[in-house]
Formats: sequence, C-alpha cells, structure tokens
Amino acid sequence: MNIRIQQINVVVGDIKSNADAVLRALEKAEADSVDLLVLPELVVCGYPPMDLLERRSFLNAVFSQNDRIIESTGSTGLLFGTVTPNESGHGRPIYNTAILAHQGETAGRVHKTLLPTYDVFDEFRYFEPGNNIHVTEWAGFKWGITICEDIWNNQNEYNYHTYKCDPAVELREKGAQVLINIAASPFTKRKPEMREDMLARHARRLNIPVIYANQVGANTEIVFDGISSVFSAEGNLITRLATFEEDHGDFTWSGSPDISYTGSSVAPIPGTEERLFHALVLGLKDYVVKSGMPDRVVMGLSGGIDSALAAVIATRALGKENVMGVTMPSEFSSSGSVTDSEVLASNLGIPFYELPIADIYQAFISTLQPVFGDSEFGVAEENLQSRARGALLMGISNKLGNMLLNTGNKSELAVGYCTLYGDMAGGLSILSDIYKTEVYAISRWLNDQFFGREIIPENTISKPPSAELRPDQKDTDSLPPYDILDGILKAYIEDQMPAEHIVQKGYHEETVRDVIRKVDGNEYKRRQAAPGIRVSSKAFGSGRRLPIAQRWTELG
Amino acid sequence: MNIRIQQINVVVGDIKSNADAVLRALEKAEADSVDLLVLPELVVCGYPPMDLLERRSFLNAVFSQNDRIIESTGSTGLLFGTVTPNESGHGRPIYNTAILAHQGETAGRVHKTLLPTYDVFDEFRYFEPGNNIHVTEWAGFKWGITICEDIWNNQNEYNYHTYKCDPAVELREKGAQVLINIAASPFTKRKPEMREDMLARHARRLNIPVIYANQVGANTEIVFDGISSVFSAEGNLITRLATFEEDHGDFTWSGSPDISYTGSSVAPIPGTEERLFHALVLGLKDYVVKSGMPDRVVMGLSGGIDSALAAVIATRALGKENVMGVTMPSEFSSSGSVTDSEVLASNLGIPFYELPIADIYQAFISTLQPVFGDSEFGVAEENLQSRARGALLMGISNKLGNMLLNTGNKSELAVGYCTLYGDMAGGLSILSDIYKTEVYAISRWLNDQFFGREIIPENTISKPPSAELRPDQKDTDSLPPYDILDGILKAYIEDQMPAEHIVQKGYHEETVRDVIRKVDGNEYKRRQAAPGIRVSSKAFGSGRRLPIAQRWTELG
Repeated sequence: MNIRIQQINVVVGDIKSNADAVLRALEKAEADSVDLLVLPELVVCGYPPMDLLERRSFLNAVFSQNDRIIESTGSTGLLFGTVTPNESGHGRPIYNTAILAHQGETAGRVHKTLLPTYDVFDEFRYFEPGNNIHVTEWAGFKWGITICEDIWNNQNEYNYHTYKCDPAVELREKGAQVLINIAASPFTKRKPEMREDMLARHARRLNIPVIYANQVGANTEIVFDGISSVFSAEGNLITRLATFEEDHGDFTWSGSPDISYTGSSVAPIPGTEERLFHALVLGLKDYVVKSGMPDRVVMGLSGGIDSALAAVIATRALGKENVMGVTMPSEFSSSGSVTDSEVLASNLGIPFYELPIADIYQAFISTLQPVFGDSEFGVAEENLQSRARGALLMGISNKLGNMLLNTGNKSELAVGYCTLYGDMAGGLSILSDIYKTEVYAISRWLNDQFFGREIIPENTISKPPSAELRPDQKDTDSLPPYDILDGILKAYIEDQMPAEHIVQKGYHEETVRDVIRKVDGNEYKRRQAAPGIRVSSKAFGSGRRLPIAQRWTELG
Repeated sequence: MNIRIQQINVVVGDIKSNADAVLRALEKAEADSVDLLVLPELVVCGYPPMDLLERRSFLNAVFSQNDRIIESTGSTGLLFGTVTPNESGHGRPIYNTAILAHQGETAGRVHKTLLPTYDVFDEFRYFEPGNNIHVTEWAGFKWGITICEDIWNNQNEYNYHTYKCDPAVELREKGAQVLINIAASPFTKRKPEMREDMLARHARRLNIPVIYANQVGANTEIVFDGISSVFSAEGNLITRLATFEEDHGDFTWSGSPDISYTGSSVAPIPGTEERLFHALVLGLKDYVVKSGMPDRVVMGLSGGIDSALAAVIATRALGKENVMGVTMPSEFSSSGSVTDSEVLASNLGIPFYELPIADIYQAFISTLQPVFGDSEFGVAEENLQSRARGALLMGISNKLGNMLLNTGNKSELAVGYCTLYGDMAGGLSILSDIYKTEVYAISRWLNDQFFGREIIPENTISKPPSAELRPDQKDTDSLPPYDILDGILKAYIEDQMPAEHIVQKGYHEETVRDVIRKVDGNEYKRRQAAPGIRVSSKAFGSGRRLPIAQRWTELG
C-alpha cells in the first residue's frame, strides 16, 4: 500500500472551500498513485465549529459536501474526518466521524468514541459518542481507525478524569494490523514531544505501526501544529511532517508490522522559543485572514518588550506595510519610550506615528473635576491614561480598518496589572498566553538566533519593566519579580496547585497568597479580555471558565 | 409524613456559609416537627460552580461540609444536593448527588443521571453521570429521587437532543410512590409555566405526587426563580412557593397518591413584564453582593429608554443612595437628553452629574489629526464620543468604587449597534438579554402598574430612539423598526431558524439577510461584552459559543 498523510489548513465554516481543498488533495494523490490518503479530523467543517453545529443549515451543508467528496473518490482510498448524522433517534443528533471512501462509495465509517469535554473542548455538547469499536476491513487489511482523543485515553496533560475504555487496545484485540488516528490536536508548548511519546508507546505496546494525521492552522484561540507522523511497530519515527505548515508525506506498508517511507523525511520540531514564535505568527495570520478582516493591524508601541515582540510577530505574519505602530507618550513616559519605539519601528520598517495623550488626559481630568474634586492621584488617573490610548488606537482602527492588536502578556492579565478598555483593548491579544519571562526569552532568541542582529532594541530588553502611568513607576512596585511571579502563576493556573503546595515549592507564603488573591480578584476583567492564542495547557479564554459572582478562595 | 420544601439563595463557592444556611433550615425544620426537609440541587457549592470543580481544595471543602451536614441531622430527614466523589477510579472524579440524611447518617444517595451539556450548562465537563436508577427506601416508603435534568427528559426548550433514558418512568416501574426532584433550574421568561406543565404531566402519567424544590437567587449570568411546588397524583397544584425569593412550604403525605398541604399556599407567578423586572433586580443585586463588590453603581443616563429602565432596576436593587447617574451631552445631544435624564434622576431621587464631553472629544480629534487628516466624519468619530463616555464612567468607577452598570439592550448587541469600550463598557450588562421592544413594555408596565405614576419620563418613552452621535441621527437610519428587528432576531437567535424560514414568517428578505449579516458579523464585539443576566432561552454570553475566525453564513 502506498499511503499518504496530509495536513491541510481549513477554515471553520468555509464548508465548500474546505471540501474543495480535500478534493484537490485527493486529485493529487490519485495522480501520484497513492492507495490511501489520510486527512485530519473534521476537515470539512473545520475545528472548532462550536455552536455552528447546532444550526441545521450548517449541518446540511456539511452532509452535502460529504456526499460530494465520497462520490469523487476513485482509485485512491480517502480517509477524512467530518460530521455525520445520528439517525438512531436517540442521543445527540450528530457524530464526529472518520469516513473511508473509495471508488465513489463509503468503505468504512468510524465514530469518535472518546469525546474531550474539558478545557477548550466541548464535544459532549454536540456529539453522540460512538459505541461500536470495530476494525475496518478494506483492501485486504484490517485497519484500526481512531479519532484524536480515542488514543489519548488517560494520557493527556489534564489528568482531570480517566476514560473507561481504550479504543486502541480494543481495536488491536479485534485484529487491527495498523492504528490510524486522524486528529485536530491543538498545539501547546510541550505538546509535540508529549504527542510523539504517546504515539510511540501505542506502537510498541500494540506492536503495530501508527499513522497519525493532524490539522494545521489556527482558528480563533486554537493553533494546530500539524507534525503528522508515522511510527513503526517498534515505536520508531518513520516520517514526520512540518510544524505549523501544510505538508504531506508518503510511505509504503506491506500489511506486516513493517513500514517504510518514500520521498518524505523527518522534519525537525523547532525549539521552545522558535515554536512559540511561529505559533503566534500563524495564530495572528489565520485570525485576520479567516475572520475576513483586512489583513492590517495597528498597535501601541510603548518602548517596552511586550509591544516590541508583538510588533515583530505582526510584521512576520502580515508584512511590514500592514503593521502600524503608534507611540502615545504622556508626562510620565521615559524618554526611552519614544526613542525605543522609533528604533523598533525603523528596524522593522513599519509606519509609525507619535500621538501624545497630554491634551486628552487633561480634558478628562478637568471634565471629571465635579466628581474627582481634590482627591489624590491614583488608579483612576492611571487608568484614564491607558483608556485614552485605547480610544486613540480604536479610533485609528475604525478610521483605517486596521484591527487593533493587543500586546498584553499572560502575567499581567493573570494579576490584573492592566486596564479594562485601555491596554486590554484589541481584536486579538497575541501574547495573552505568554508569560513575561517567556516574552523575554522569545525576544532574546529573535535577536540572537532568528535575526542574528538587534531588531528589538537592547534597551527595550534590558530596562526594568514599567507601565509608566505615574512618576518613576516600576512593575516591581506592585508585583514580585517576574521569574517569581511566573513560577507561582504557572503552579496556580496550569498545574492547579493549592496554595500550600506552591509555598512548598519554595515561594514566600505572603507572595503566594498575594498573587492568588490578585488572580482570583480579576476574573471580571478577563471576562472582557480580547481573545488570545492558546499555547499552554491552561490559557485564559474559553478553556478556563470561572464564575464572577462567587466567594471561593484557596486562602481560607 | 410532614414534608417541607425550601428554596434558599446560596452563593457559589461560599461553601461554609452555604452549609450554615442548610443547617439553619434543618434546625427550624426540626423545631417545626418536619419529617423530611427537601432542599435544592448543589446547595453546598452553589450553581454554577464551573471550573472551581476542577480544584481539589474546593472539592475537599465541599466534601467536608457534606459530612458536617449529614452528622448534624436528627429526627428530621434532610434531602439536599451536593457534589460527592466518584471513588470507582473510572470516569470523571465527581457526581452531582442528592443525599438523604437522617439521624446523623446517610439514608440514601442518588447521582444525577442526565447531565445537561448545552447552552449555559457544562455538566459533562465535570460530572460522571449516575448509572444506577433506583428507588430510595426510607421511613417505610419508596421515594423516587431525581435531580433537575433527570425529569426534563426530552421536554426542555432546546430540543437539541433526546435522552435515551427516562429516570422518572424507571423509578415508577421500580415502585416509587412519590417523585421528588431537587433542581437548579434557571429562569427564562417562559420557564415558570413550561416547568409546571412538565411537573403536572409527570404526576398524571406516573399517577404519583411530584415534589419539586428549586434554587432561588442569581449567580453571574444565571437567575434561579424558585417557584418550588408540589403536585398531586392527578396533576393538581397543591403548593407553590414564591418567585425570586427565599421561601418554604409544608404539606403532609400519607404514602398514598393523596397529598395535602398545611400552612403554606399557592403563591402567584408574576406576569411577563413583572417577572422580567424582578429577575433583573435580583440579578443585579446578587451580582454585586456575591462578587463582594461595593453595592454601588454608576451609570450613564442618555435620556433614552434603556438607561432609564436600567436606572429604575438599579434603584430598586440597591437603593437610591447607591445609584449615581451621569449625563454626558455632546454637540449632537438633543436638549431632551439632558432634561429627560434630570427628570428621571429626580423622580428616582438618585445623585446626578452632568459631564459634557466636548473638550475630550475635541482633544481626541485634534490629537488624531496626523492620522485622520481631512477624512470625513464617520464611525470613528461616532465611536470616539461613545468611548469618551465609557472612559468618564470608568474613571468615576475607579475613583469612587461604584461598579459601572451597562445599559445596552439585546437588540443592539445582536446587530452590533453599540461601541466596544464605549457604551458596551461595564461590570454587568443588565439589559443584554432584553430586546428593545421588551424594554418599552417593561418601562410602560413600571409607570402604569408598578409605580402607578410617571417615573420614567413620558418623553423618554415616546421619542424616537437615537444614539445621538451625529446630527439628527435616528436608530431607524441604520436598523429596521424594532418590532421587525426583534422578530427577526428572536427567530434567528433563539429559534435558530434558517433565513428562508424567517422570510416565510412574513419578513422582507433583504431585511432578514441584512439583520443576519449584522448578527454574524459582530461576534467579535460580543466576545468582549460585559456579562449579562440570562432571561431567554438563548442569551449572548456563556450559553452561546461561536468562533470568530470562521466563514459560515446562512446567506450563501
């Protein structure tokens, strides 16, 4: 058997175009004498379709393209993921299905058994689980076909619950000669290695080859990294496709545990900073392209490291002519905030404006005099500066059509060190799942490795971080140093550790309590935050759902 | 048997205090010689606890209060809803459970079988479903105990899917002499009648009495209306508790299909406008109280009907001394916008400020000159006015601690006739699930029935609605008349009708297409909207989940 795995970048809801992409892949596979083409999960509707799955018209459009795809198959067998109707009259009305089509007919059909319903996943909201684990007999072989979560049984990074059944093992017991998994498995920073470990483990314990085809591309909050792969029965990596790019790879399989590859090779997986950078570039690009917005952004450049990194990402994703930087100094801005922004904009070659906020801020203060009276300068005045900037940037966005790109990071969003409708404004928050310490690491990597020269000004990297909303302000006036803050945040948010365990890791108890208090107390702000690109196992956004009107605290 | 149903208002996450409230109810029931006290679903942790259920420390606190409650029981049996651990080692780690406790011991334990996972409900995200439907034998009788969704089998207002099992019927077949349902059943405007129809149907088809105890109180987006009730085997309403208030009711049951009540009576259910008004009053009050914010709000008064209704709701919920009204006229404001606001504030007796935005707006325009150049007045300039107002109100909020109450309605949020970070700003959007036509109906009812005098100025009700962001602007310049708009929106959003069915209802095709285009195109705005109070079967917020980067459209 000549088998091809192919990872394609489909658009949620663009049903006809996605089906066209499937058919183009099929046509090429037929021309290349491929016997079986394996495409990822839900390629017809895209992932995650969310509540579009509740619309009858949407489902009908998917079903109709399924038929078109099946009817178009000829000599090449096609395995692809899509939505199919549950016609039993019981349970949820649809399945998440892998269809094997050949010679214009359906040759096999497998429904997803394990439906992820945690973090960003809501599959039980829509899909009826499959309850008939069976091998697919086709072309003289017994294929063990599974969909994404089906092989993550009790091996995922959440450990929130254990599944009762293990489809891969059941398929092997029923005679499967090869395990295929079609997936829409989102990227997180440690996922590539975790996933390949899991695939290799399956191969070894079942003693059959494992063929894995994953989606690539970003959809709102989620980025799919691709990295589709094939493992031999010994658990050896035979082929691996590209990271964050469309790609395909061919190999031959004799029906024995042996498998060999032809043409394609083992693509490298980029290192931590590189993969985060490319995830964000793809996340931003696909967000604007797939939303149908103009592919242009406007952003505030503060002279600080967050906006500098965001500008590099935007320039890489959209091109320098499509990124506008605006510096908006106040009386509290350091001289470096303007000059560092200017240097950055010049290094990147992006259009740059300087719009001072003094007049706007003064107008706010004098208009508010009847209410503020002679009260002291405080958070209200700080936030007015931030909101003046937010409104200026949104004004430009409305006038020119450039989406406002938000540049806040995960550390500040976690503790609420940011202003609602001010520096929290934007259509997409590109760094909202990137801790401040990671912002530094990626920025240094960009200068040192990626560009090999100083694109982000050294002064931006080396100066102490400051919001510059009052005289001589430093982030450390309000927050612990970022290496400590980020350590506590990661333990609390991603690892869901109780306070006392975090203290046991070596952090000061009062610091831990203060950080937890800030994280819990700022849920209301995050509820109105711009959507972000998820790159960790627990991002703010649709995967972390907390009540606002509540009184739980870890802190007694 | 002397039986008491009691609806209590618990706070999500306030585990110890909620348990205290349970014990106070138990103590009173024992003093009143009650044999069985029935409390609602999940009263120990509150509903919805959301991802707090993933925190081990949270669960341990609940389990410990469960033990305390069970140990405190004496002569009165207590049936209450809470979270219990799944110790099987398989599946999700917790159950949604009804515990029957008596004489310090557990006398019965029933896990929820049907887990709602649609709209605002995510129960499959957390809970393992019960798989052992059984009657509870206690005090010489066979009790059919169920939890909320267990009796909504295929009778709910979503019709999204059908359940495979029917716990009420199974319990009856196993000998249940009475059906008890403990619930956290959210209010929607037609829910009270729908729910009682369903309860009466159960009683008649099973020929046994039905005892129903529902939560009361609001938690972030959800309002529980209470209206706990008892039905005879003939389906006759025996007792009904209050709407939107804590209450309890006693009755006697002989073990036969007969049931009789003592002491309590049948409380009336308020009419449509009245119930919506009280739902919003409770929603706002509990939101600020349960969030631990100061019980004070600030709000913009535009002279229009939305802010007028919101001000009445706020005054009723928090007291007139805790509601601050601010009018922020511009050059485009009608003279009525200030005077109507003044009259309203005076009628309500709330503090009132006038803060003109001319200076701020001019400062924005002149600061933006390098970018705007000599471009024409447009949406950017309109939005700057709205954002100037948003920033003024947030400045007051930051300075005085009053939460900004957002006053936008569902019609404008649906079509995006509102400004992100401007009139969309606020800690809570009190009218975000109220259509404009409903805003009028409730306002008229308030003047005519509730107050019996003109509290909302007649001019506010009768003048054509306008955003007043450009000269002589009217809402109908951009939108169809509200009775038409709201009809289309309800069909599209709540009834999920495809475009052609909406046209078949008698709406003009181009209007339908334009409205659908606007609804779909403004998902990105709503993603950052303030949380609202859900009163319809499909509100914007956590119950409606749509991708932003997507290309689906009904419109071909």
